[in-house]
Amino acid sequence: MLSHLKDLQFEAKPDGPDAAFARRLQEILGGKWGEMTVAHQYLHQGWSCRLPGRYRDLLLGVGTEELGHVEMIATMITRLLENAPLMLEQAAEDNPMVTAGYAGANPAHLVHGGGAALPVDSAGVPWTGAYVTASGNLLADFQLNVTAEAQGRLQVARLFQMTDDPGVKQLLRFLLARDTMHQNLWLAAIEQLREDGLAQMPVPEAFPDGSPRAHAPEPLLPPGDPRLYGTPALEVDPVQSPLS
Amino acid sequence: MLSHLKDLQFEAKPDGPDAAFARRLQEILGGKWGEMTVAHQYLHQGWSCRLPGRYRDLLLGVGTEELGHVEMIATMITRLLENAPLMLEQAAEDNPMVTAGYAGANPAHLVHGGGAALPVDSAGVPWTGAYVTASGNLLADFQLNVTAEAQGRLQVARLFQMTDDPGVKQLLRFLLARDTMHQNLWLAAIEQLREDGLAQMPVPEAFPDGSPRAHAPEPLLPPGDPRLYGTPALEVDPVQSPLS
Amino acid sequence: MLSHLKDLQFEAKPDGPDAAFARRLQEILGGKWGEMTVAHQYLHQGWSCRLPGRYRDLLLGVGTEELGHVEMIATMITRLLENAPLMLEQAAEDNPMVTAGYAGANPAHLVHGGGAALPVDSAGVPWTGAYVTASGNLLADFQLNVTAEAQGRLQVARLFQMTDDPGVKQLLRFLLARDTMHQNLWLAAIEQLREDGLAQMPVPEAFPDGSPRAHAPEPLLPPGDPRLYGTPALEVDPVQSPLS
Amino acid sequence: MLSHLKDLQFEAKPDGPDAAFARRLQEILGGKWGEMTVAHQYLHQGWSCRLPGRYRDLLLGVGTEELGHVEMIATMITRLLENAPLMLEQAAEDNPMVTAGYAGANPAHLVHGGGAALPVDSAGVPWTGAYVTASGNLLADFQLNVTAEAQGRLQVARLFQMTDDPGVKQLLRFLLARDTMHQNLWLAAIEQLREDGLAQMPVPEAFPDGSPRAHAPEPLLPPGDPRLYGTPALEVDPVQSPLS
Amino acid sequence: MLSHLKDLQFEAKPDGPDAAFARRLQEILGGKWGEMTVAHQYLHQGWSCRLPGRYRDLLLGVGTEELGHVEMIATMITRLLENAPLMLEQAAEDNPMVTAGYAGANPAHLVHGGGAALPVDSAGVPWTGAYVTASGNLLADFQLNVTAEAQGRLQVARLFQMTDDPGVKQLLRFLLARDTMHQNLWLAAIEQLREDGLAQMPVPEAFPDGSPRAHAPEPLLPPGDPRLYGTPALEVDPVQSPLS
Amino acid sequence: MLSHLKDLQFEAKPDGPDAAFARRLQEILGGKWGEMTVAHQYLHQGWSCRLPGRYRDLLLGVGTEELGHVEMIATMITRLLENAPLMLEQAAEDNPMVTAGYAGANPAHLVHGGGAALPVDSAGVPWTGAYVTASGNLLADFQLNVTAEAQGRLQVARLFQMTDDPGVKQLLRFLLARDTMHQNLWLAAIEQLREDGLAQMPVPEAFPDGSPRAHAPEPLLPPGDPRLYGTPALEVDPVQSPLS
Repeated sequence: MLSHLKDLQFEAKPDGPDAAFARRLQEILGGKWGEMTVAHQYLHQGWSCRLPGRYRDLLLGVGTEELGHVEMIATMITRLLENAPLMLEQAAEDNPMVTAGYAGANPAHLVHGGGAALPVDSAGVPWTGAYVTASGNLLADFQLNVTAEAQGRLQVARLFQMTDDPGVKQLLRFLLARDTMHQNLWLAAIEQLREDGLAQMPVPEAFPDGSPRAHAPEPLLPPGDPRLYGTPALEVDPVQSPLS
Repeated sequence: MLSHLKDLQFEAKPDGPDAAFARRLQEILGGKWGEMTVAHQYLHQGWSCRLPGRYRDLLLGVGTEELGHVEMIATMITRLLENAPLMLEQAAEDNPMVTAGYAGANPAHLVHGGGAALPVDSAGVPWTGAYVTASGNLLADFQLNVTAEAQGRLQVARLFQMTDDPGVKQLLRFLLARDTMHQNLWLAAIEQLREDGLAQMPVPEAFPDGSPRAHAPEPLLPPGDPRLYGTPALEVDPVQSPLS
Repeated sequence: MLSHLKDLQFEAKPDGPDAAFARRLQEILGGKWGEMTVAHQYLHQGWSCRLPGRYRDLLLGVGTEELGHVEMIATMITRLLENAPLMLEQAAEDNPMVTAGYAGANPAHLVHGGGAALPVDSAGVPWTGAYVTASGNLLADFQLNVTAEAQGRLQVARLFQMTDDPGVKQLLRFLLARDTMHQNLWLAAIEQLREDGLAQMPVPEAFPDGSPRAHAPEPLLPPGDPRLYGTPALEVDPVQSPLS
Repeated sequence: MLSHLKDLQFEAKPDGPDAAFARRLQEILGGKWGEMTVAHQYLHQGWSCRLPGRYRDLLLGVGTEELGHVEMIATMITRLLENAPLMLEQAAEDNPMVTAGYAGANPAHLVHGGGAALPVDSAGVPWTGAYVTASGNLLADFQLNVTAEAQGRLQVARLFQMTDDPGVKQLLRFLLARDTMHQNLWLAAIEQLREDGLAQMPVPEAFPDGSPRAHAPEPLLPPGDPRLYGTPALEVDPVQSPLS
Repeated sequence: MLSHLKDLQFEAKPDGPDAAFARRLQEILGGKWGEMTVAHQYLHQGWSCRLPGRYRDLLLGVGTEELGHVEMIATMITRLLENAPLMLEQAAEDNPMVTAGYAGANPAHLVHGGGAALPVDSAGVPWTGAYVTASGNLLADFQLNVTAEAQGRLQVARLFQMTDDPGVKQLLRFLLARDTMHQNLWLAAIEQLREDGLAQMPVPEAFPDGSPRAHAPEPLLPPGDPRLYGTPALEVDPVQSPLS
Repeated sequence: MLSHLKDLQFEAKPDGPDAAFARRLQEILGGKWGEMTVAHQYLHQGWSCRLPGRYRDLLLGVGTEELGHVEMIATMITRLLENAPLMLEQAAEDNPMVTAGYAGANPAHLVHGGGAALPVDSAGVPWTGAYVTASGNLLADFQLNVTAEAQGRLQVARLFQMTDDPGVKQLLRFLLARDTMHQNLWLAAIEQLREDGLAQMPVPEAFPDGSPRAHAPEPLLPPGDPRLYGTPALEVDPVQSPLS
């Protein structure tokens, strides 16, 4: 069960509007490594965790915090979309900022969302449940979570270099600090798994490697079922062919 | 069975080209609430309608009209793409309209479509059959249809504010008027359903609500099948853990 | 900001495993009208709501409750997947329940999810952010929310007819009761909007309908830009053609 | 503009229900090479055709006929879904036909569609606008249309081998005959294009091939922009590395 | 089995950076008719080819060459992304080339890819396996391959018109020449299939066309299963209805 | 540049057909963590690698090997599809293996692929380029690669438990051994990066964490642009509302 508190974890207010940056910021909301991905990934890992206690609590706790990050970024994007230039004619008024704001924006922000954030990435492609992995193997998943925080931190750091707006930069710096903390939490959880004797590398360690003989000749397939109307088999002489 | 007439329902001709607006207009052709969605939604609802007569006729009639709207919008988009700026170098000629037209366009309109409309939305994401709902329950579906016309009308009204081209504005005004008429048709159909004694709120009314006891403790999952290589169960003491 | 409580809103425990029903139940978790859709739809509508107070609070409150429903259904699916038949050979043991459980399951539940719920629908197609609409117009969105609860309630009622498991039926009955309550909440919110003088039909009412002249002749397109390598124009005589 | 006629082009009635075959039949409704693809492909090619007369008429005429095929197949699928087994328990009654009908069905047909066709393929994946190509070059597109009819005819012929139901087989035979006719129409249109002097192979013939020098050494990339936080450059000696 | 050689088939080096053109070039890497599609299509057709020898060898040989084209285009895109403008503020410096480069770029190239190519199209939509067809019928597939080279050649020729960069134009000219050669190879393979007596038009020729009677009255559907909660049947009089 | 060798890395031949297992095996060909993902991920990471030498060589070498794994698995799937039951009527012959083989198969394998592998996952959802990450930061990407091998190894180990076919089991054992080797290679590469002084945790280490003040009050949004037709602002008294 979840509950919602009105306050935000951190103030998310830009100094001014910027529709083109609003589009870019969508990458960390609804992109492959954005907050929607980590929120749902950690929650699903928690919901299917068969070890009650600290591992499950950690997953559900961090997952829920990430939902609050979605909220902060959505609020920021909506604010960046204030006063977005709606018409090409505005772009003719010789202000390159307006031109770029018009042409670099995601039109769906305005036409579909009415000036608000959408669950899509920076190209406008919708977020998909395929981004979520909860494999039931905690070592594999904690490693993935370390990775997710690393990729996420990388994207936030890049976005930090793409704006001069102090309010936006403060939010990004806050998100970076949280990502670092979470990265360390997952690394500690991997360490704990090892101490608890629950998992080792490679994953899954319970499956012993064999040493099968490698290399085999070209595979030859039999003729197919005629009811599938594939090309019938015929002995052809490759030497005479113009194709060879 | 359908037949095609050469004429359009309404003249769809812009006063001048505008590749950036062509991209935006795609939202009402191939977006979630665009004409492709309502056309296929109403047709599917009609094809699966188990009541011959007025409900079925209404669905198939309006659905077919919406296919004609796809045609009009596709024609308009193709005309707006005439003389689209093809090269960045053209954008250097100090005309912000050209710069915005180059940068704000959907490149696939030119490279893939050869200067014509595509079945995609304003971000270039392809239309998908997942946008269509035909549930077999007419009240639920008529309500959805009212909603679809409202969301569609909203998007058309926004696009009306995003251009000064009189020809485009006339087309949008025509589409708005038709959306209003359809919205009223679906509201009348809901009224008729009630008069015919066929459906009430909530949907489906045939299912009586009970009053189950709410609240339950934290769910505990049993250990998983070892053949799935999840993390094995182990009694751990959460007190001693650095994670808690 | 959100917080997570360990308890569930309702006990979600089946009397026995059923991998085929687990796959079907995914429709109301990750399908178009499932709990992920309504949760994110209401939250996005709340995050972008420009009216502080009751409308915003309502949206964020119900949206957060729906996240708890995702949790309950995910837990139920994971429990239904216990002891799922892993091999075709098991299906040969002349128990049609096992045969159907093997063949009617979603293999990704086992191979990818390790025996747990996934954010996908009953066909295994991942949930997508395209299912979410937050238009910024409360009347349009509240109508959509009524619709979403109606479609959702319909699906839950159908699933209720597809199982004899008392535990599963209890959960479905609980979800049905909540959907009814939410349907009524959105209807009341529409009424309130009208009382507050904030919105009328059609949506958006602020845009006046005109009455444009309908009907236009077949559209003729000019020859295209030769740099796009379309078929060149040529005056042809349709009478002599074998195509006409 | 399109209009709808109540009659079908051909009687589409199965001798009995078969939910598993209903799922398979979806491939030719909403699959990559199904009727939705050819309908929209031909219509888009017609809407963007810059040659008024026979080519445009042919495209719009055949495209509209294909929409009628969608209607016939949708009607057939809905009829095949009558009396679909809803519960696993029914599968226990020792009738392998029922077991296979339960497990081999697409659950979304029942839970989402209420027992009717959906715009999806045989795996349940929604149809997408990405299946449509209208390039603006008639020779390229007529070739693609020949191909589309060939792939479609292949799939219909395979489905013909997958059922004994005489009513279904008659519909499939009708579709096969229409596909053959359309295949021949597109071949004739290619011939006509050549006679009209409008296009030759390769496509686009207007672009002359050169003969550039092939082969180049391994590409070396410069160090990246430090603001993107890639791995920095460092002179390393590959000889000493455990990786080489 | 495949092996990688460090050298490229052709030198892929632009004279200068151009982030907007980098986005456009993605169409022939990860678009519907791009190199990823033909590479995987030919390889899958080869892997499932039941005729050992020239047909299989041809498919695997050309498919592997296309993978090398993906490599060349990816390298070119990465080079075009050097020094991409990261901030809107740079666009304010009154250089329309920079404005267009900022606004016309795909932000995911920078935020997600760190300044490198992605497996997406020119709108940023990810490549999908649905673009690949390997039907098992060589005539149908060789025709599709001719088509794929024609559509691909068309797109490369259009991109050639969208840049003045000599290095980029040389790469495009090289790709055009290879596409022409492949188009001719597939045409020769079709000829060979005929000479070998393996396939004729229409595809599949083995299925004889019948001549079924066309035209049927409006289809009437029976009332649905009440457990699916569709609208119940009722005899209604269409004459009195406000809908008709 | 790549070249193709006719031989396979390992013999991929089942002892008998099994259409249901063929569908399951697709997960490691075209699923999120399947061979197509790792092949393209490593190749893209190599193509954009700015450090010539061992890192680039390693990425391109392993990526190319994974393409050979796609080939082996595709060949195995095609062989498992031999003699697949095409009709429900066959399922009536009282052999549960046939019933499960009919109902548990992916129909697209037969109708679309003509009895061969497809680039899709075990639910039939097409592989997508969104599964590939090449961030330009080698430490982040090597960690992801360790993860990818762990998730992949997990899935192969699970599939090993889902079949008794010795030939299939040998192939899976071979793939497991290669995954283990690759997992170790990426771990060694991470070690090497550290020794070379190129990267540390967290990723990107070059960005210093700050310590921003957390917690902020509920965000209030200003009224929206009236041209977007959102709900207008109005001072409402939440106390009197039936919603609160």
